Amino acid sequence: MIITLTTDFGLSDPFVGIMKGVILGITPNAQLVDISHDIDSYNIAEAVFVVDTMYRYFPKGTVHIVVVDPGVGSDRRPIAASTHGHLFVAPDNGVLTAVLETEAYHIKNDRLFLNPVSQTFHGRDIFAPVAAHLAGGTDIDSVGPRIRDFVKKPLPRPRRQGRKILGTVLRIDKFGNVITNFRRSDLGHDFTIRIGGSPIARLCTNFSEADPGEFVAVEGSTGYIEIALNQESAADRLNVSNGAEIEVESDSTKH
Amino acid sequence: MIITLTTDFGLSDPFVGIMKGVILGITPNAQLVDISHDIDSYNIAEAVFVVDTMYRYFPKGTVHIVVVDPGVGSDRRPIAASTHGHLFVAPDNGVLTAVLETEAYHIKNDRLFLNPVSQTFHGRDIFAPVAAHLAGGTDIDSVGPRIRDFVKKPLPRPRRQGRKILGTVLRIDKFGNVITNFRRSDLGHDFTIRIGGSPIARLCTNFSEADPGEFVAVEGSTGYIEIALNQESAADRLNVSNGAEIEVESDSTKH
Amino acid sequence: MIITLTTDFGLSDPFVGIMKGVILGITPNAQLVDISHDIDSYNIAEAVFVVDTMYRYFPKGTVHIVVVDPGVGSDRRPIAASTHGHLFVAPDNGVLTAVLETEAYHIKNDRLFLNPVSQTFHGRDIFAPVAAHLAGGTDIDSVGPRIRDFVKKPLPRPRRQGRKILGTVLRIDKFGNVITNFRRSDLGHDFTIRIGGSPIARLCTNFSEADPGEFVAVEGSTGYIEIALNQESAADRLNVSNGAEIEVESDSTKH
Repeated sequence: MIITLTTDFGLSDPFVGIMKGVILGITPNAQLVDISHDIDSYNIAEAVFVVDTMYRYFPKGTVHIVVVDPGVGSDRRPIAASTHGHLFVAPDNGVLTAVLETEAYHIKNDRLFLNPVSQTFHGRDIFAPVAAHLAGGTDIDSVGPRIRDFVKKPLPRPRRQGRKILGTVLRIDKFGNVITNFRRSDLGHDFTIRIGGSPIARLCTNFSEADPGEFVAVEGSTGYIEIALNQESAADRLNVSNGAEIEVESDSTKH
Repeated sequence: MIITLTTDFGLSDPFVGIMKGVILGITPNAQLVDISHDIDSYNIAEAVFVVDTMYRYFPKGTVHIVVVDPGVGSDRRPIAASTHGHLFVAPDNGVLTAVLETEAYHIKNDRLFLNPVSQTFHGRDIFAPVAAHLAGGTDIDSVGPRIRDFVKKPLPRPRRQGRKILGTVLRIDKFGNVITNFRRSDLGHDFTIRIGGSPIARLCTNFSEADPGEFVAVEGSTGYIEIALNQESAADRLNVSNGAEIEVESDSTKH
Repeated sequence: MIITLTTDFGLSDPFVGIMKGVILGITPNAQLVDISHDIDSYNIAEAVFVVDTMYRYFPKGTVHIVVVDPGVGSDRRPIAASTHGHLFVAPDNGVLTAVLETEAYHIKNDRLFLNPVSQTFHGRDIFAPVAAHLAGGTDIDSVGPRIRDFVKKPLPRPRRQGRKILGTVLRIDKFGNVITNFRRSDLGHDFTIRIGGSPIARLCTNFSEADPGEFVAVEGSTGYIEIALNQESAADRLNVSNGAEIEVESDSTKH
């Protein structure tokens, strides 16, 4: 049984290692996989994007722990959910938006927690042990009551405005590729993307098709359109970051 | 059997991966858990704090490797110790201060080492293979002779000075929370903490109780008092770092 | 069965975690070991050095995935190779230079791939699943046809120029040690190394032999000569980085 970990805890402090110790004390043969611990502190949208991108590549039955949790210790609820054969454990603050469907479970069964429970590290005291119990075979409905009023915070979608479509930068990846919220179908046949002042009208199938210094659009590995340079950071050169606006004018929008 | 790794090696170089290769060559089914490899280079006090914070969350029988080792290749001894059901392997330079009790073992049995042993990477050549052998069931007293004169470097404790208690910043965590060496009992009922010019008189049970921009004290997940802001870095705003001085005036100190 | 991962993907994006999900879906009990994901983007020489340094410390039968892949999606081939009892999976761009011998295999068998295969993330769609199949027992010659015209990009070797030997900085490690491409035998008995303006004439067996502030040469754990300071970054003080030139004048060169 696999347990993945996605947090904003960083890797310098022992937080993530401690969570793993707690898990292995409960389910000794769990396979632990780090997704990212560099989610920007408190950034729920970033967690939504990362969870959406990664979970489908794991086998069914995987338990995913997602802890970006500015409200730790407050009355925000801890929740668990089962979707598409995967299990998720997280605070009820929207981080599971991409995977929550009609129901989730409010985690309340404190026999599954560490004792005592701190007010500032539920990753250690609640999420890790509950995930370990779920991975070990505990039924999800034993964590607490079913709820339907969980929090969702959908990622922004492109919207039409006259002849244009307005979109947003969802993420800059390590290589400086600018991941937008456009899909291939938003671009139509002929298009011009405007971002950071530069018009981009060429769609390449991969990065190395681009000429040196040429900004191009690429359908990235997540299915979103990315703005890229060949072996250079498009984000740095365009001076854009998460949340920046993008405009597309395309033949599909001209109809 | 679990083996944890705490070092100042970073994750860019292949040092940590190589140690894991050595371990898995000896004990193929070891579960390897990274605690932190971002200990500040050569910083023994930071290792002491991290080890103290984390080991108790692992199941008994876990072997902990701690390599912050400015004296590698010199006559500083490699040691192993068994405490509270956990095993530790480290250089004898104080990094195990939080867990060493009355005795340790001077690692001398070179049949447990890689051959040859380099003068600059005992993590690979001595600590990793010895830990792997211990995890695989080798008796700790077969590593070498028992010693009692191991090095200890205790973390600073708060000290009274007239009506005040003087303390120290032990660590800044990833969120900018300022971990002090005060305990809840040092604060009494009414208290004023002075650090970086700001008086702090409110104890919150969690971070989100604080108003925006308000510095508060929180009993952190390690049991130490932390100075925090709600969703902001207190350390950046106070401009303090490890080792900074803190003053507490409290009703408990006024008696 | 162990699978190691060496990439330039960083740890902030979910790329590496996704590759692990793919692997564990195919070979559930693979032991996954991260070597480094901080290879400088697109830097093939850095990958060559890291692979050369690390693979021999793993047990035979280990599968090593190396993805530094500026040409992903172009016509550069994916390859697999077996050397010294280890298996390697990588793009055919030189990253396996240190381990490729007379032959490799051109990975073409798309029944081993994820479906569909993206044009920008072969780590996920080709290298991870092929490595997982190899670790699970699939024969290497079932990945595709044998080839002999693979790409090699050897690391620079020291070269004589009159009475001097000219070398290069291969890498700066986390501690600021400057790893050169000289071997112990290049230095002879009496030598003067010149780098960044400073003459260095003393060979120490370990870092702590050096006086404070004294630049020394040390035979490092990789077998290369390193320029070091005791508990300080030699690279910062010398202001040198990868690829910098170094000169050695030695009695061995005076013959």
